[in-house]
Amino acid sequence: MKLATLKDSTRDGRLVVVSRDLTRCSEVGHIARTLQAALDDWAHAGPRLARVAEGLETGSQPAIRFHEHDAASPLPRAYQWADGSAYINHVELVRRARGAEVPESFYTDPLMYQGGSDGFLGPRDPIIAADEAWGIDMEGEVAVIVDDVPMGASEEEARSAIRLVLLVNDVSLRNLVPAELAKGFGFFQSKPASAFSPVAVTPDELGEAWDGGRLHLPLLVSLNGKTFGRADAGTDMTFDFGRLVAHAAKTRPLAAGSIVGSGTVSNRENGGPGRPAAAGGIGYSCIAEQRMVETIEMGAPNTPFLAFGDTVRIEMKDKTGHSIFGAIEQTVKPLGTA
Amino acid sequence: MKLATLKDSTRDGRLVVVSRDLTRCSEVGHIARTLQAALDDWAHAGPRLARVAEGLETGSQPAIRFHEHDAASPLPRAYQWADGSAYINHVELVRRARGAEVPESFYTDPLMYQGGSDGFLGPRDPIIAADEAWGIDMEGEVAVIVDDVPMGASEEEARSAIRLVLLVNDVSLRNLVPAELAKGFGFFQSKPASAFSPVAVTPDELGEAWDGGRLHLPLLVSLNGKTFGRADAGTDMTFDFGRLVAHAAKTRPLAAGSIVGSGTVSNRENGGPGRPAAAGGIGYSCIAEQRMVETIEMGAPNTPFLAFGDTVRIEMKDKTGHSIFGAIEQTVKPLGTA
Repeated sequence: MKLATLKDSTRDGRLVVVSRDLTRCSEVGHIARTLQAALDDWAHAGPRLARVAEGLETGSQPAIRFHEHDAASPLPRAYQWADGSAYINHVELVRRARGAEVPESFYTDPLMYQGGSDGFLGPRDPIIAADEAWGIDMEGEVAVIVDDVPMGASEEEARSAIRLVLLVNDVSLRNLVPAELAKGFGFFQSKPASAFSPVAVTPDELGEAWDGGRLHLPLLVSLNGKTFGRADAGTDMTFDFGRLVAHAAKTRPLAAGSIVGSGTVSNRENGGPGRPAAAGGIGYSCIAEQRMVETIEMGAPNTPFLAFGDTVRIEMKDKTGHSIFGAIEQTVKPLGTA
Repeated sequence: MKLATLKDSTRDGRLVVVSRDLTRCSEVGHIARTLQAALDDWAHAGPRLARVAEGLETGSQPAIRFHEHDAASPLPRAYQWADGSAYINHVELVRRARGAEVPESFYTDPLMYQGGSDGFLGPRDPIIAADEAWGIDMEGEVAVIVDDVPMGASEEEARSAIRLVLLVNDVSLRNLVPAELAKGFGFFQSKPASAFSPVAVTPDELGEAWDGGRLHLPLLVSLNGKTFGRADAGTDMTFDFGRLVAHAAKTRPLAAGSIVGSGTVSNRENGGPGRPAAAGGIGYSCIAEQRMVETIEMGAPNTPFLAFGDTVRIEMKDKTGHSIFGAIEQTVKPLGTA
């Protein structure tokens, strides 16, 4: 089943079930007006929504055209956005670029930060920033939306609580990061609103690409129409989503509708840090990573962060080349021009 | 106007307007079923709720008994909980206890962390922890709930967006903090669910004690029935709420219903770190601070963190001795016994 939220005059938009090919959708206000409402009562709403999805495929369900640009993030606002950093290759590059070691514990204890969730950008909304000098960057990631997870849940319990899978652009302001992390309390101003893919899908929709905790398909990240990265989200993911969700639930329960992210998708290439897509490599899911590789190899970064007018696109396709989640496609714009 | 949320079978409870003396309340489902719904449309809902509050005081409004123990946190779940650390005395003690300097920037740039907001404890709910060895501690704080705040808002704009004031117990797991902060991404497991006071009040309700950005009254914190701290929340607050909210909104808008906290209320005493309440001093709003003073003065901490069975109470009284927000009163219990 594929779900989306259409923008309307309300803060939470309205839930629709979307056809597998992303061309049609059905309103489901009689089941749940919003995605959060469906997640709040998934045991009842989930099966009813699934029947609508079946009807959409067989043609028995009345439908309207679905346009990705009408979609808000599936949860336009959420009660929790907890973002992991599960691809240790990314962490290793961050550290190597500044000449530091990766602590041994990083291979057994997931990194995770609490993100802001009071308002997400729509998948086609601009990325608004007051200043290019903030070092605007995308981070292409996979995320899951969970049902209620009890405090102290096992990885197995955590995996079984995963209801939906989607993509994220975890927008980051790189030049604000060092000073902010030096203060010791983690990210705040350096992580403005994230954007999510137009469509969130149930794990069964992913077939063999979903192994219960990892999504084994390339994440396609492009910048101004050119491929920037195509790292496989199932490769080099040190901690799977079961582990990440269990980490988040160690000392407190997670409420239904909590979103847990993978961190920037990042692959090694031939055991090394990889090569830019422009040089025939797998590339990267964020500019910072390409800059770190440049720093390691050439002593200084070369690729600039995003400028006003730049457009980022993040998408994932199934084995037959069809878009699974629709595309995140965002242009960077200065504050006051939206 | 005073607002509370009564627990019911739903995740968000139901909004009531509470009489100034906290003895009676009126259901206001015809205006807004939940506090978040009221905040989503405050321009319309706020004045209508205020008329109910007037009717409660004059006796023209039908009312039922209000019992603090029936209340959930005013927002049982929220889209944002951003907690500052505005009392630099607290930060100075943290640093001094470990022999470190306070960076100069800390006096001009607020510390703030993104907290989890998917589920708050009710004001009389137990604090559940799997292990006493986590170093369970309370943090008595003041917080505000804001309306929509645009990205880049000035301190003045931020101040004018404050809709409600309330108290917090920002439960902290002290022994999980060092390893977590060393990872660089801030708090996560070390900050489980917080609890808020039974009642949230509009700033006008606070009279002269509210100066637009600070609440000038002692925060009464007790442990197992004995006074632990009575630090004045208006004293030594380096950054007022306008500054904290503007800091949070620097790179992104804040959505209505976002909660911004002050950090542990902490006063100097005669220019120094103060004395325990048991020794006749102003005392502290968290155990960690008393332990830091013990470490500075005696080389090692003496006061233990919370044990199962311990009860914490956090309250604030007006000049005539009446409770303003009702009391947070929580007993620590092991996982599985709730």
